[in-house]
Amino acid sequence: MVKGVSVTSVRPWGLPDDAFEQRRPLRGQITKREVRAVSLYLLGLKYDSVVWDIGAGTGSVAIESSLISRDGEVYALERDENSIELLRNNVERWGAGNIRIVVGEAPATLSGLPDPDSVFVGGSSGRLGEILDEVARRLKPEGKIVVNLAALERTQETYHRLKGLGFSPELVSVNAARGKELKDGTVRLEALNPVFVISAFREGAENE
Amino acid sequence: MVKGVSVTSVRPWGLPDDAFEQRRPLRGQITKREVRAVSLYLLGLKYDSVVWDIGAGTGSVAIESSLISRDGEVYALERDENSIELLRNNVERWGAGNIRIVVGEAPATLSGLPDPDSVFVGGSSGRLGEILDEVARRLKPEGKIVVNLAALERTQETYHRLKGLGFSPELVSVNAARGKELKDGTVRLEALNPVFVISAFREGAENE
Amino acid sequence: MVKGVSVTSVRPWGLPDDAFEQRRPLRGQITKREVRAVSLYLLGLKYDSVVWDIGAGTGSVAIESSLISRDGEVYALERDENSIELLRNNVERWGAGNIRIVVGEAPATLSGLPDPDSVFVGGSSGRLGEILDEVARRLKPEGKIVVNLAALERTQETYHRLKGLGFSPELVSVNAARGKELKDGTVRLEALNPVFVISAFREGAENE
Amino acid sequence: MVKGVSVTSVRPWGLPDDAFEQRRPLRGQITKREVRAVSLYLLGLKYDSVVWDIGAGTGSVAIESSLISRDGEVYALERDENSIELLRNNVERWGAGNIRIVVGEAPATLSGLPDPDSVFVGGSSGRLGEILDEVARRLKPEGKIVVNLAALERTQETYHRLKGLGFSPELVSVNAARGKELKDGTVRLEALNPVFVISAFREGAENE
Repeated sequence: MVKGVSVTSVRPWGLPDDAFEQRRPLRGQITKREVRAVSLYLLGLKYDSVVWDIGAGTGSVAIESSLISRDGEVYALERDENSIELLRNNVERWGAGNIRIVVGEAPATLSGLPDPDSVFVGGSSGRLGEILDEVARRLKPEGKIVVNLAALERTQETYHRLKGLGFSPELVSVNAARGKELKDGTVRLEALNPVFVISAFREGAENE
Repeated sequence: MVKGVSVTSVRPWGLPDDAFEQRRPLRGQITKREVRAVSLYLLGLKYDSVVWDIGAGTGSVAIESSLISRDGEVYALERDENSIELLRNNVERWGAGNIRIVVGEAPATLSGLPDPDSVFVGGSSGRLGEILDEVARRLKPEGKIVVNLAALERTQETYHRLKGLGFSPELVSVNAARGKELKDGTVRLEALNPVFVISAFREGAENE
Repeated sequence: MVKGVSVTSVRPWGLPDDAFEQRRPLRGQITKREVRAVSLYLLGLKYDSVVWDIGAGTGSVAIESSLISRDGEVYALERDENSIELLRNNVERWGAGNIRIVVGEAPATLSGLPDPDSVFVGGSSGRLGEILDEVARRLKPEGKIVVNLAALERTQETYHRLKGLGFSPELVSVNAARGKELKDGTVRLEALNPVFVISAFREGAENE
Repeated sequence: MVKGVSVTSVRPWGLPDDAFEQRRPLRGQITKREVRAVSLYLLGLKYDSVVWDIGAGTGSVAIESSLISRDGEVYALERDENSIELLRNNVERWGAGNIRIVVGEAPATLSGLPDPDSVFVGGSSGRLGEILDEVARRLKPEGKIVVNLAALERTQETYHRLKGLGFSPELVSVNAARGKELKDGTVRLEALNPVFVISAFREGAENE
């Protein structure tokens, strides 16, 4: 189930969206660069973090995380068989050598992994509640969880579920617009769809 | 003019805004976390990058950069004498040991520094045009420049100046809103002021 | 309980926020001009509409509605005794002569009013569900309801309650930012807090 | 050049975007409902206003204005011959009977029109500067001008040109996002592109 991929990379941190989208059947569903940046920042990555990327998709968050946490381990979890080849290719091409791809459905696939320092949840799958419960059980002291959401309903559910699990969640709505140059050389703005980013921090425990 | 500060850090990447604001006379002028994240992402940092942070302010961009480019060198340039103590304290407390603070006014202060891989300009000082010209002369092949701007006038000037200097600039407007929990437990959104982030990439030249 | 106010107005449609805020204890809580404009537009006002403004506050929506529906009747409902004097002053100063102020708490106060063509709900009071139920019972065929909301939880509750009541609600998030001129003559943007505007339309019935 | 269209309407104020878009070759270029609402609100329409809609396009602003200024006169100016039939159809179907379509290019076409109380400029045509100059000459005391802009460059030019003409312009960036219901019944937000709305007010003169 767990397949290791070993790559060495000296590429710069921070890739454009289309780096991850090549040969992708459903373009446009990648976490956009601006949201990826905010999410990565909120993950509180350390050099030696254990990172779970749940619903890894193209692997963009896992891959960028691997460059910051280059002495750690990154687990890219994905249940959709159709995404695995692209995910594997992206990991090989862009990632540092510390990413492992895990095929299967969370939370079941989480049991075989080491406890995480940082967890990213890339979307609101049907089992988000269970996943959050399991992450809460497993997250190390001072660990961070970051969830990307589009639906208002899932956003408020996730916020309140994390509160119920003892976290103090923070919410940010990221509304970015990109400049597009017109024929006359002027620049107008093209909006990206808003994404809600919820992050939560586990207080350090005295028995750490 | 250049003063070295040596610190070792194992702190996580990604700090809240108030980490940088302690004892600050003018609160609220720091680059907000969401904008800092996008700006850092666009800087294209490598492990061994030479980074200039021009108009370093509290040092938030320099400090976070130092953790990614931990084998590189980060130069935090600031002309405002009143900001230097806070900048120095933040660098000592939060930065990796590879940040040097440079007191004085750009572009004059740039002459003594090694050519950069990544340059961040934190605001639209009165000499932005000259600074961009100098950065364009000095930036290494495949280097990146990122400018944060608030004023519409400076934004379009910067965009077009970078074009004139041979770059293909990209513009993004970052409009974030943070959740605030009300007494009844519900969450509403409080908007941050929009910031324009312009980034530009230097193509690698064969005659390097 | 119902007090008539008779005024004649030839003032232009569309007032600035501060027209409604004079002598107000809690400034800043008025529906902002940009959101007011969108809400009024979505109310589908006719010249002879019966309009309910529930939670009228300063009366800004009731007052602007009265100028479009000048052959109709506008009911401004407000339960907060402390707001009534300001509401009355605003209605006298700015409204057309067809606004009636109703003091008391909805939905109880709604029973004495004629069935509405357009209903505006200015905020999420504790009894929003009951109010929506009553509005659904009373709204005339082809009538419109518009609700302004700040909290994510109330927004999705309102959306789904209106669906359950047979409406096809539409949601828009209004994120405006206003230009502010700086000392050097340049203009930057200051964001207003996002507001959710939900609107719903009742299909015309054959038994109209 | 000036062709009158006589229609009587009792339709509600506030139409959806698709009312104006039927049979349109270039869909998606209409002023979006949210921006139309804000623009109309800022026009300061009176019952008997003379309104110029310069670059009328589908006529959406002219048409809605005609319902508020039903005792006034609305002039819908459009130079693009290909748009005229749709404009005429929309005016006939949706407008009150007080709209006149003027085919030709502003500012030349303005000379035959009565001085305006309210002027809307729907886009940044190549002659925006001249148009603003002419509007400034002709606008009545207490009159209002509203300009919709997409390009950063035109936005700041328009703002500063209006200042140079003695106005105190106000700028608002309208960033709306509309709810879209997904298959599972949840609602996510789809962003509309940001539009800049500049409005300016002429102070009443003593010789009014």
